[in-house]
Parts: sequence; C-alpha cells; structure tokens
Amino acid sequence: MKIVALLYPQMTLLDLVGPMQVWSFLPGTEIQYVWRDKGPVITDCGLPVVATHDFSDAASDPDVLFVGGGAYATLALLGQPDVLAFVAARGERAKWVTSVCTGSLILGAAGLLRGYRAACHWGAREQLTNFGATPSGERVCIDGNRLSGGGITSGIDFGLKVAGHWAGEDTGRVLELILEYAPEPPFGTGRPELADAATRDRAGSMLAAAMAAPG
Amino acid sequence: MKIVALLYPQMTLLDLVGPMQVWSFLPGTEIQYVWRDKGPVITDCGLPVVATHDFSDAASDPDVLFVGGGAYATLALLGQPDVLAFVAARGERAKWVTSVCTGSLILGAAGLLRGYRAACHWGAREQLTNFGATPSGERVCIDGNRLSGGGITSGIDFGLKVAGHWAGEDTGRVLELILEYAPEPPFGTGRPELADAATRDRAGSMLAAAMAAPG
Repeated sequence: MKIVALLYPQMTLLDLVGPMQVWSFLPGTEIQYVWRDKGPVITDCGLPVVATHDFSDAASDPDVLFVGGGAYATLALLGQPDVLAFVAARGERAKWVTSVCTGSLILGAAGLLRGYRAACHWGAREQLTNFGATPSGERVCIDGNRLSGGGITSGIDFGLKVAGHWAGEDTGRVLELILEYAPEPPFGTGRPELADAATRDRAGSMLAAAMAAPG
Repeated sequence: MKIVALLYPQMTLLDLVGPMQVWSFLPGTEIQYVWRDKGPVITDCGLPVVATHDFSDAASDPDVLFVGGGAYATLALLGQPDVLAFVAARGERAKWVTSVCTGSLILGAAGLLRGYRAACHWGAREQLTNFGATPSGERVCIDGNRLSGGGITSGIDFGLKVAGHWAGEDTGRVLELILEYAPEPPFGTGRPELADAATRDRAGSMLAAAMAAPG
C-alpha cells in the first residue's frame, strides 16, 4: 500500500498524524510525505516535519492520496495552482482519495469531489458546496472510493475504520486495541450540538480568527 | 507556558502530537522540541520531525516537561545516561512532569516517579514498578504534579483534561469542540478487557515484536 500524504506550511498536525499512525501499523505500508520542495515544513504545533518527497518524485500512481486540513493555511492552498494540479493528478490515479478535516476543501478545489459526499470540520463544512460536493455531518464518510473524516480528532476514527475496510475488521480490532482507543472525552462538548452556547460562541470566534489570519 | 517536549528516534508520533495539538490552542504556549542534537529525528510513522532545541539550549526551568512513548525505541533510551540525565534535570525543575504511553517508563528511569501513580500503555504498564511507581489503569492519571496518559490515543484525553486543569474547564470545553472530539471508535476493542481473546493475542504478539526489535 503506497500512500501519498500532502504536507504544507501551518497544516494542522494531528489531522495528518491520526491516520498515518494507524496505517503505519498495517504491514507493507509505505508513506511518502510530499510538499512542493523536500525538507522542513512548519506545522501549527510549531513542530517542523520533513517532506520526504516533492511534487516531481512522489509516486504518480499511489494506492492512497491523503490530504489533511488546517485553518488559514488550507484556504491559502486553494489559490496555489501547482498544489491543486498535484493533488488532482494523484487523486485521479489513486485507488482511494482521502482527507481529514478541511483537507476535503483541497480535494474539492482540485475537482475530486464533484458529486460526492464528504466530511469536513464542522466550522467549514458548508464550503464543500462550492466544489460540487455534498457536506456530510458524519465523523467518517465513505462514498465510493472517497473516504473522509470530520474535524481534527476524527482522523483516528477515520484511520481505524478505513484500515478495517482495507485489511478486514479483525485487523481493525487489533489496531484499535494497540492504539488503546477507548476514549473518555473529559467535557462532552465535541460537537456543536453537544456544547452550550457560550462554548460554541468562543469556539466559533477562535476558528474565525484562525481562518482569517496567520497566528 | 513553556513546554519542553522530548523527541527521539522511532518514537510513536501520535503520543507526542495528541497533547501538543491540544496545548497549541492555549494562548501563550511555547513548545521546545528537544533531542540530543538539533535537526531531523525519524518517527515510527516514517515522518521525520525536527528538533528545534538540543540538550544544551533547551529551557532549564520549563513549566512542563513532556515525554511520549514508543516500542523498542523507548526501551533503548533507558540505557542512554545522557538522555535520562536531561529528563531528570528538567523534570526536577518543571512545574508539571508529564507523559503519554510508555513515556512514563522514561520518567520512571530518570527517577521522577518514585512514590507516584502513573499511567502507561496497557502492554507495558507493569514495568512502572521497576522504578518505584504504582501503575494506574486510568486513561488519564493525575497525581500531584505528575500527569500521565495511557496508550497512544490517550494523549488526546490527557491533553484536554490537563488543559482544563491549567486553563479552566470553560477553556477545556472550547478546545474539545474545536478539536471535534466526539469519538466513535469503530470496533469497541480499545482496552484489553473490551477485546475478544483472538484480538488480544494478536495485539500482544505485535506489541512483543515491536518491543523486541527494530522494524
């Protein structure tokens, strides 16, 4: 299983690492971490990660294309034609076209989601309609070979469910145990409809600020 | 809030990224990613990350020391005196001494958990007794200023709970919504007591292999 995963400056690191951690436990997995240029790429956690491949030497026919999200960083990519061309070319040939969080907006802008349902972070989900996609409120959305997760932490559920889809549910069960994924969210506010109005308002303001400007 | 987070070769990347992603949303947070030498450090996902600081220029009095886990990579650190000396020195001066997964074994080997309870991955939890610590089966364990999470994905629950502890529960609720942490584990096998015997056996074999040898 050859996976091409897009890196980009200020991306939300957990969007990427959730599914890559899960899939790394699948035998025979090779992940290429790709950006325009090889070398360090800063993430929104202040941790630089390193692109192992660039747009010219990344596999042209990967089994999986994966794109994670970010805030203003993702919106910035929508205006970068070479990035969208790379995503479109890999996505057209990949067996599976996948994303977490606002990564689905990048797939959409590359023309890969027309007529498909896709998940996205709750704060940006409606923007999928700009690209001919139907927003899904599911935590993990499977529509043909388009596989998408919702906001940030959804990437773990997404990674596990997709691993079970690819390698069988027996393997999915083993990975869930190895990853010790028996969550206990401390506050119970992980979706807008679960949160009180004050929490929703503060989260909305923080997200709007993050989408608007470098921070 | 100044955080010193240890990097090391072949570490389990999600152990680190879960809490760092959560804490990055706290205003005024500075995270130093530290290894013996600055520069790229390979992780178990095949993604190199970059140490922004080394043992000589990392903050000597951080607010937080954080150590994540790994499989054989963690066991290998237990025999590296300079690493344990660095962890001990920062831990003795930090306000909060924290870990996820088998990172608690490193804290233990550095002498920082004597007489404390600590969490750890279920597959290695009992080894904490070698260091005078009491193993906890909790997903998040708070004992004085020793804060620890269980295996791999526990780092998200850990990061959120600790963020609420530091910044108040109102902020914790907002972060949980921004991170969209309303988990739906697809298989329901995230703890040994939830899994069937065949799943437990396969997971145990995979973990034993990962602890024994580079792979």
